Amino acid sequence: MIKHISHIGIAVKDLDQGIAFYEKLGLKLEAIEEVPSQKVKVAFFPCGDTRIELLSPTAEDSPVAKFIENKGEGIQHLAFAVDDLPAALSTVEADGIRLIDKEPRPGAHGADIAFLHPKSSLGVLIEFCKEKH
Amino acid sequence: MIKHISHIGIAVKDLDQGIAFYEKLGLKLEAIEEVPSQKVKVAFFPCGDTRIELLSPTAEDSPVAKFIENKGEGIQHLAFAVDDLPAALSTVEADGIRLIDKEPRPGAHGADIAFLHPKSSLGVLIEFCKEKH
Repeated sequence: MIKHISHIGIAVKDLDQGIAFYEKLGLKLEAIEEVPSQKVKVAFFPCGDTRIELLSPTAEDSPVAKFIENKGEGIQHLAFAVDDLPAALSTVEADGIRLIDKEPRPGAHGADIAFLHPKSSLGVLIEFCKEKH
Repeated sequence: MIKHISHIGIAVKDLDQGIAFYEKLGLKLEAIEEVPSQKVKVAFFPCGDTRIELLSPTAEDSPVAKFIENKGEGIQHLAFAVDDLPAALSTVEADGIRLIDKEPRPGAHGADIAFLHPKSSLGVLIEFCKEKH
Protein backbone atom coordinates (compact mmCIF):
# COMPACT_ATOMS: atom_id res chain seq x y z
CA MET A 1 0.00 0.00 0.00
CA ILE A 2 2.71 2.48 1.07
CA LYS A 3 5.59 2.88 -1.39
CA HIS A 4 7.81 5.35 0.46
CA ILE A 5 7.60 8.54 2.48
CA SER A 6 6.41 11.26 0.13
CA HIS A 7 7.42 14.14 2.38
CA ILE A 8 7.78 15.48 5.89
CA GLY A 9 5.86 18.72 6.45
CA ILE A 10 7.59 21.18 8.76
CA ALA A 11 5.80 24.33 9.94
CA VAL A 12 7.95 27.49 9.96
CA LYS A 13 6.97 31.07 10.73
CA ASP A 14 9.32 32.61 8.20
CA LEU A 15 9.93 30.74 4.94
CA ASP A 16 13.20 32.54 4.11
CA GLN A 17 14.64 31.74 7.54
CA GLY A 18 13.54 28.10 7.13
CA ILE A 19 15.12 27.85 3.67
CA ALA A 20 18.38 29.34 4.98
CA PHE A 21 18.52 26.75 7.78
CA TYR A 22 17.96 23.68 5.58
CA GLU A 23 20.45 25.03 3.03
CA LYS A 24 23.03 25.17 5.86
CA LEU A 25 22.43 21.42 6.28
CA GLY A 26 23.46 21.05 2.63
CA LEU A 27 19.98 20.39 1.20
CA LYS A 28 19.08 21.99 -2.14
CA LEU A 29 15.91 24.04 -2.58
CA GLU A 30 13.96 22.60 -5.53
CA ALA A 31 10.95 24.91 -5.75
CA ILE A 32 8.58 27.18 -3.88
CA GLU A 33 4.85 26.86 -4.45
CA GLU A 34 1.79 28.54 -3.00
CA VAL A 35 -1.15 26.26 -2.11
CA PRO A 36 -4.18 28.56 -1.77
CA SER A 37 -6.52 25.79 -0.50
CA GLN A 38 -4.22 25.28 2.52
CA LYS A 39 -3.20 28.96 2.81
CA VAL A 40 0.49 28.07 2.80
CA LYS A 41 3.65 28.68 0.86
CA VAL A 42 5.71 25.52 0.53
CA ALA A 43 9.48 25.15 -0.04
CA PHE A 44 10.59 21.74 -1.34
CA PHE A 45 13.94 20.09 -0.53
CA PRO A 46 14.45 16.64 -2.11
CA CYS A 47 16.27 14.21 0.20
CA GLY A 48 16.79 10.62 -0.98
CA ASP A 49 13.41 9.25 -2.10
CA THR A 50 11.50 11.74 0.05
CA ARG A 51 11.31 15.52 0.53
CA ILE A 52 11.38 18.05 3.32
CA GLU A 53 8.50 20.48 2.79
CA LEU A 54 8.67 23.73 4.72
CA LEU A 55 5.19 25.16 5.26
CA SER A 56 4.67 28.81 6.09
CA PRO A 57 1.18 30.29 6.58
CA THR A 58 -0.12 32.95 4.20
CA ALA A 59 -3.12 33.83 6.40
CA GLU A 60 -3.97 33.88 10.10
CA ASP A 61 -6.63 31.20 9.68
CA SER A 62 -4.30 28.82 7.84
CA PRO A 63 -4.11 25.37 9.50
CA VAL A 64 -0.32 25.85 9.68
CA ALA A 65 -0.75 29.21 11.47
CA LYS A 66 -2.96 27.47 14.05
CA PHE A 67 -0.42 24.66 14.44
CA ILE A 68 2.39 27.15 15.12
CA GLU A 69 0.18 29.09 17.57
CA ASN A 70 -0.64 25.92 19.53
CA LYS A 71 2.58 23.92 19.33
CA GLY A 72 5.27 26.21 17.96
CA GLU A 73 7.35 25.59 14.87
CA GLY A 74 8.23 21.98 14.06
CA ILE A 75 7.18 18.84 12.21
CA GLN A 76 3.48 19.14 11.37
CA HIS A 77 2.73 16.07 9.29
CA LEU A 78 4.13 12.92 7.73
CA ALA A 79 3.02 11.97 4.22
CA PHE A 80 3.16 8.43 2.85
CA ALA A 81 3.09 7.92 -0.93
CA VAL A 82 0.47 5.36 -1.97
CA ASP A 83 -0.37 3.89 -5.40
CA ASP A 84 -4.14 3.93 -5.09
CA LEU A 85 -5.40 6.64 -2.73
CA PRO A 86 -9.14 5.72 -2.58
CA ALA A 87 -8.21 2.05 -1.95
CA ALA A 88 -5.71 2.98 0.77
CA LEU A 89 -8.33 5.15 2.53
CA SER A 90 -10.92 2.34 2.38
CA THR A 91 -8.42 -0.19 3.73
CA VAL A 92 -7.37 1.82 6.77
CA GLU A 93 -10.95 2.98 7.50
CA ALA A 94 -12.12 -0.64 7.45
CA ASP A 95 -9.36 -1.30 10.00
CA GLY A 96 -10.85 1.25 12.41
CA ILE A 97 -8.63 4.25 11.60
CA ARG A 98 -10.49 7.58 11.54
CA LEU A 99 -10.10 9.85 8.53
CA ILE A 100 -10.17 13.63 8.24
CA ASP A 101 -10.68 13.38 4.45
CA LYS A 102 -12.91 10.57 3.20
CA GLU A 103 -12.26 11.70 -0.36
CA PRO A 104 -8.96 12.74 -2.00
CA ARG A 105 -8.41 16.47 -2.45
CA PRO A 106 -5.75 18.47 -4.31
CA GLY A 107 -2.41 19.12 -2.56
CA ALA A 108 0.89 20.70 -3.56
CA HIS A 109 2.93 19.50 -6.57
CA GLY A 110 -0.25 18.31 -8.38
CA ALA A 111 -0.74 15.44 -5.92
CA ASP A 112 -4.03 14.09 -4.57
CA ILE A 113 -3.97 13.92 -0.78
CA ALA A 114 -6.04 12.89 2.25
CA PHE A 115 -5.35 13.15 5.97
CA LEU A 116 -5.94 10.51 8.65
CA HIS A 117 -7.18 11.73 12.03
CA PRO A 118 -4.34 12.21 14.57
CA LYS A 119 -6.65 10.99 17.38
CA SER A 120 -6.49 7.52 15.89
CA SER A 121 -2.87 7.66 14.73
CA LEU A 122 -1.05 8.10 18.03
CA GLY A 123 -0.49 11.84 17.82
CA VAL A 124 0.95 11.94 14.30
CA LEU A 125 -0.90 13.84 11.56
CA ILE A 126 -0.56 11.37 8.66
CA GLU A 127 -1.25 12.19 5.04
CA PHE A 128 -1.70 9.68 2.25
CA CYS A 129 -0.50 11.10 -1.02
CA LYS A 130 -0.88 9.98 -4.62
CA GLU A 131 2.06 11.74 -6.24
CA LYS A 132 1.85 13.09 -9.78
CA HIS A 133 4.95 12.28 -11.81
CA MET B 1 26.72 16.00 3.32
CA ILE B 2 23.24 14.49 3.82
CA LYS B 3 22.57 11.30 1.83
CA HIS B 4 18.98 10.58 2.76
CA ILE B 5 16.66 10.54 5.76
CA SER B 6 17.89 7.78 8.03
CA HIS B 7 14.74 7.57 10.11
CA ILE B 8 11.84 9.43 11.69
CA GLY B 9 11.62 8.88 15.44
CA ILE B 10 8.05 8.70 16.78
CA ALA B 11 7.39 8.62 20.54
CA VAL B 12 4.68 6.16 21.64
CA LYS B 13 3.53 5.26 25.13
CA ASP B 14 2.85 1.61 24.32
CA LEU B 15 5.12 -0.12 21.80
CA ASP B 16 2.67 -2.94 21.00
CA GLN B 17 -0.11 -0.44 20.27
CA GLY B 18 2.28 1.56 18.08
CA ILE B 19 3.36 -1.53 16.16
CA ALA B 20 -0.27 -2.56 15.61
CA PHE B 21 -1.08 0.89 14.17
CA TYR B 22 1.82 1.02 11.67
CA GLU B 23 1.11 -2.58 10.63
CA LYS B 24 -2.46 -1.47 9.79
CA LEU B 25 -0.87 1.05 7.39
CA GLY B 26 0.80 -1.94 5.69
CA LEU B 27 4.34 -1.34 6.98
CA LYS B 28 6.38 -4.40 8.01
CA LEU B 29 8.08 -4.61 11.40
CA GLU B 30 11.76 -5.36 10.82
CA ALA B 31 13.14 -5.59 14.37
CA ILE B 32 12.77 -4.45 17.97
CA GLU B 33 15.85 -3.30 19.85
CA GLU B 34 16.47 -1.92 23.32
CA VAL B 35 18.85 1.07 23.56
CA PRO B 36 19.86 1.27 27.24
CA SER B 37 21.78 4.57 26.83
CA GLN B 38 18.53 6.27 25.71
CA LYS B 39 16.24 4.18 27.96
CA VAL B 40 14.03 3.25 25.03
CA LYS B 41 12.77 0.25 23.15
CA VAL B 42 12.73 0.88 19.40
CA ALA B 43 10.59 -0.81 16.72
CA PHE B 44 11.91 -0.42 13.15
CA PHE B 45 9.70 -0.23 10.05
CA PRO B 46 11.61 0.19 6.75
CA CYS B 47 9.86 2.53 4.31
CA GLY B 48 11.58 3.32 0.98
CA ASP B 49 15.13 4.48 1.75
CA THR B 50 14.22 5.52 5.29
CA ARG B 51 12.62 3.97 8.39
CA ILE B 52 9.90 4.75 10.87
CA GLU B 53 11.32 4.18 14.37
CA LEU B 54 8.78 3.87 17.18
CA LEU B 55 10.36 4.85 20.50
CA SER B 56 8.83 3.77 23.79
CA PRO B 57 10.39 4.71 27.14
CA THR B 58 11.74 1.99 29.43
CA ALA B 59 12.17 4.33 32.43
CA GLU B 60 10.47 7.45 33.79
CA ASP B 61 13.62 9.55 33.26
CA SER B 62 14.00 8.51 29.63
CA PRO B 63 14.17 11.51 27.24
CA VAL B 64 11.26 9.95 25.36
CA ALA B 65 9.17 9.72 28.57
CA LYS B 66 9.81 13.44 29.16
CA PHE B 67 8.87 14.24 25.56
CA ILE B 68 5.54 12.38 25.91
CA GLU B 69 4.86 14.07 29.27
CA ASN B 70 5.45 17.54 27.78
CA LYS B 71 4.08 17.22 24.26
CA GLY B 72 2.16 13.96 24.06
CA GLU B 73 2.83 11.13 21.63
CA GLY B 74 4.08 12.10 18.18
CA ILE B 75 7.13 12.72 16.01
CA GLN B 76 10.10 13.31 18.30
CA HIS B 77 13.07 13.63 15.96
CA LEU B 78 14.23 13.56 12.36
CA ALA B 79 17.50 11.80 11.54
CA PHE B 80 19.59 12.56 8.46
CA ALA B 81 22.13 9.98 7.27
CA VAL B 82 25.56 11.51 6.70
CA ASP B 83 28.79 9.98 5.34
CA ASP B 84 31.22 11.62 7.72
CA LEU B 85 29.64 12.48 11.07
CA PRO B 86 32.49 14.51 12.66
CA ALA B 87 32.86 16.56 9.45
CA ALA B 88 29.10 17.19 9.24
CA LEU B 89 29.05 18.38 12.87
CA SER B 90 32.00 20.73 12.28
CA THR B 91 30.40 22.14 9.13
CA VAL B 92 27.06 23.01 10.70
CA GLU B 93 28.65 24.30 13.93
CA ALA B 94 30.88 26.61 11.86
CA ASP B 95 27.66 27.86 10.25
CA GLY B 96 26.26 28.92 13.63
CA ILE B 97 24.05 25.90 14.38
CA ARG B 98 24.11 24.81 18.05
CA LEU B 99 24.83 21.16 18.85
CA ILE B 100 23.61 19.00 21.72
CA ASP B 101 26.37 16.45 21.00
CA LYS B 102 29.74 17.80 19.96
CA GLU B 103 31.04 14.25 19.64
CA PRO B 104 29.34 11.22 18.05
CA ARG B 105 27.81 8.70 20.45
CA PRO B 106 26.33 5.22 19.95
CA GLY B 107 22.70 4.95 18.80
CA ALA B 108 20.40 2.10 17.79
CA HIS B 109 21.27 -0.35 14.97
CA GLY B 110 25.04 0.11 15.58
CA ALA B 111 24.96 3.68 14.25
CA ASP B 112 26.95 6.67 15.51
CA ILE B 113 24.67 9.62 16.19
CA ALA B 114 24.67 13.25 17.34
CA PHE B 115 21.82 15.69 17.93
CA LEU B 116 21.60 19.33 16.86
CA HIS B 117 19.95 21.74 19.30
CA PRO B 118 16.24 22.36 18.50
CA LYS B 119 16.61 26.01 19.59
CA SER B 120 18.74 26.64 16.52
CA SER B 121 16.86 24.32 14.16
CA LEU B 122 13.40 25.92 14.11
CA GLY B 123 11.73 23.59 16.59
CA VAL B 124 12.82 20.29 15.01
CA LEU B 125 15.06 17.91 16.97
CA ILE B 126 17.52 16.87 14.25
CA GLU B 127 19.90 13.93 14.49
CA PHE B 128 22.85 13.30 12.24
CA CYS B 129 23.47 9.59 11.87
CA LYS B 130 26.36 7.57 10.44
CA GLU B 131 24.62 4.30 9.65
CA LYS B 132 26.42 0.98 10.00
CA HIS B 133 25.79 -1.33 7.07
